[in-house]
Amino acid sequence: MSTRAHLPGLRDRAQSILSAVGGATRDELGVIRESYGAGEDTALQILTEQAREMGFVSDTDRAGNLWLRLPEDQREDRFVVIGSHVDSVPQGGNFDGLAGVVAGMLVLAGLQGRHEAAPPVRVLALRGEESAWYGKAYIGSLALLGRLPSAALDLKHRNGNGTLGEAMSRCGADVDMIRRGEPLLDAARVSAYLELHIEQGPVMVARGWPVAAVTGIRGNVRHNRVRCLGESGHSGAVPRWLRKDALLAVAELLSRMDEHWRVLLQMGMDLVMTIGICSTSLRSHAVSVIPGEVGLSFEARSQDEQTLERFYALMRAECSAIESSRGVRFEFDERLFTAPATMDPGWIGKFESAWGHTGQALERIPSGAGHDAAVFANAGIPSAMVFIRNENGSHNPHEAMDIDDFLAGAGLLHRVLSGESLTP
Amino acid sequence: MSTRAHLPGLRDRAQSILSAVGGATRDELGVIRESYGAGEDTALQILTEQAREMGFVSDTDRAGNLWLRLPEDQREDRFVVIGSHVDSVPQGGNFDGLAGVVAGMLVLAGLQGRHEAAPPVRVLALRGEESAWYGKAYIGSLALLGRLPSAALDLKHRNGNGTLGEAMSRCGADVDMIRRGEPLLDAARVSAYLELHIEQGPVMVARGWPVAAVTGIRGNVRHNRVRCLGESGHSGAVPRWLRKDALLAVAELLSRMDEHWRVLLQMGMDLVMTIGICSTSLRSHAVSVIPGEVGLSFEARSQDEQTLERFYALMRAECSAIESSRGVRFEFDERLFTAPATMDPGWIGKFESAWGHTGQALERIPSGAGHDAAVFANAGIPSAMVFIRNENGSHNPHEAMDIDDFLAGAGLLHRVLSGESLTP
Repeated sequence: MSTRAHLPGLRDRAQSILSAVGGATRDELGVIRESYGAGEDTALQILTEQAREMGFVSDTDRAGNLWLRLPEDQREDRFVVIGSHVDSVPQGGNFDGLAGVVAGMLVLAGLQGRHEAAPPVRVLALRGEESAWYGKAYIGSLALLGRLPSAALDLKHRNGNGTLGEAMSRCGADVDMIRRGEPLLDAARVSAYLELHIEQGPVMVARGWPVAAVTGIRGNVRHNRVRCLGESGHSGAVPRWLRKDALLAVAELLSRMDEHWRVLLQMGMDLVMTIGICSTSLRSHAVSVIPGEVGLSFEARSQDEQTLERFYALMRAECSAIESSRGVRFEFDERLFTAPATMDPGWIGKFESAWGHTGQALERIPSGAGHDAAVFANAGIPSAMVFIRNENGSHNPHEAMDIDDFLAGAGLLHRVLSGESLTP
Repeated sequence: MSTRAHLPGLRDRAQSILSAVGGATRDELGVIRESYGAGEDTALQILTEQAREMGFVSDTDRAGNLWLRLPEDQREDRFVVIGSHVDSVPQGGNFDGLAGVVAGMLVLAGLQGRHEAAPPVRVLALRGEESAWYGKAYIGSLALLGRLPSAALDLKHRNGNGTLGEAMSRCGADVDMIRRGEPLLDAARVSAYLELHIEQGPVMVARGWPVAAVTGIRGNVRHNRVRCLGESGHSGAVPRWLRKDALLAVAELLSRMDEHWRVLLQMGMDLVMTIGICSTSLRSHAVSVIPGEVGLSFEARSQDEQTLERFYALMRAECSAIESSRGVRFEFDERLFTAPATMDPGWIGKFESAWGHTGQALERIPSGAGHDAAVFANAGIPSAMVFIRNENGSHNPHEAMDIDDFLAGAGLLHRVLSGESLTP
């Protein structure tokens, strides 16, 4: 079989792409591939060069995302997209996102010379999946599908300088069209969206699953910036009963919410809460100044929309109670909401069948993290994901994916499309 | 009387010095007079010019502090120092520190042509009283008295660039001598240290006291930087029981300590607690990342040394308990300790007598905030302070001192030394 001949080459190729992109975008700790920024550009350039070497043609859409396909495949049928993102959080890991794009490239390579064994396949390297830079996730996929809220274009960069729209413009995106919400892709031409991604939690390592099929993706409710406003003052001279300490107010809020979260889990609900950012005012804080202002983010995720809404309402109620008891005030920026998404049962079934040759059952797992696949699914495109076992979580420099697990996942994608093996 | 003739001139002079220094060091919000930095230099330059106009001679000591005196007073007797500081916290108020130096200048002016009515007087404009810049307070007075710990010279600036020793060197201080702990002043020549300062709390406004005598100064125990180390991870993918969220650990610590503080106050103890700085890691935090690191400061102040020690021990015990329950780790920088100080009862009595001409009793008040007067007192120099009523606290841009209250306080200093009135 031709694909058997490919394998040693594909393993080396995968490792070399992953190393090249990781090496070019690594800071002293982790990788920095800013959404619609320098590191993401670098990653896309390297992928474009590698794709050329591998014999693919590339193209950039009007949201700046990179598309790869086989030049010999001239069929006009609806196509399957194998996609993932190339950006990272600040000081992030190399595999989160990138692995899915490389997997797509391996599938394309496996189909070289025998593409008629599968439906037409396009690989999509998306920009701007991480919310860490502009406080908005899935930017590249939402823009592609005409679903990026126009207000998102005005979001400020995390360092306070410049907007998302300006950054997208610099990357060649057609910001006017995106602002008008016009789809940049005819969704009717896409028969399915498939994504391989490392698991970002510890479950598959704990259970010994190299690859698993994703059943659904948690939605989330967020505020990127909540402000708690109290009253600053001299730390030695103001007695407790005259203070309006914004930090102790926030500490009470977080302690209360942490306890509510614990109780709701015991009641069987699916929920995680994260306050990823919390800081006294960098401009004026000092050891001897009572904090007059604290800024923080808020995020809750659940597979159940009602749980999200109820937990959010509880958070707002606790803020009101603390405002009354401590004389502080909470201010909220725009509430961001991403609905939970269900993965396509038909494709999950196909993955299970395609995994059959291993003699083992393909396990199912829900995704705690959000993915571009949720955007495609919520736009009505049948979508499915496979997770790859990964040590130490993601969004940190210590993520660790075994190349054999990765090849097994890429092989599964190849087999589900072609019925043939990518691995010997 | 010659001093009566001075008054309209002195009121204008005081307002003009305060405005000149405030105007030259104001940022868009408050004033910025960095310890051993640019704004402090500017303030000292303006004071030197004003002193020259007023007919005083000036001199700089080997810690960079400014001294003013009457050239015609050639007496070799022990002298009284009227001192305060010219630096401010970031975005601070104009009167905190500066008012005390200006009061000393008014006293000198009141003694012009009749200095033999009082003991020799020197005015001392100190540098580096605020801990906000290098995490160390009373730098100018400690260095002057040979009591600045040599390790303090290696403290980093709050922005991470450069050390205190480097900044002091740039301001002309003899850092070698200071490092060796050699006194730069013969303390035996100082008969007393007197300081006028705005009250930094709300008590005098609430009670209607324009001026009060300070009984003692709270000591404090501090850490400029405590780190809580947990484990970062993807906010959607790690379940609660596998998290080591450094921020929720810190929130629990602060909520527990806040509650202990409340209880100790009910037991009658003198105590304030302030966490002025608290932040998730600026380098890697993001809305969708579980905080793996939080940095914070800790400060407790009390007039009672035992209360400080016991509250500190309780804080450390709570950290240990939270380390066990949450899988995090706390790391502490050097513990800084400033002992409480008692003001000289003899001088407090003199202030009360000198206030007698108003027909009202001079009220007594403890100082919640620390002052250079505590450094002089703890070095064995009889020290005393008068507080001036001040709205909105200090260490913020909204402090508000009435010029009449200020003139009454400066007049009290003049009368306690000369027996004569500065005000008609």
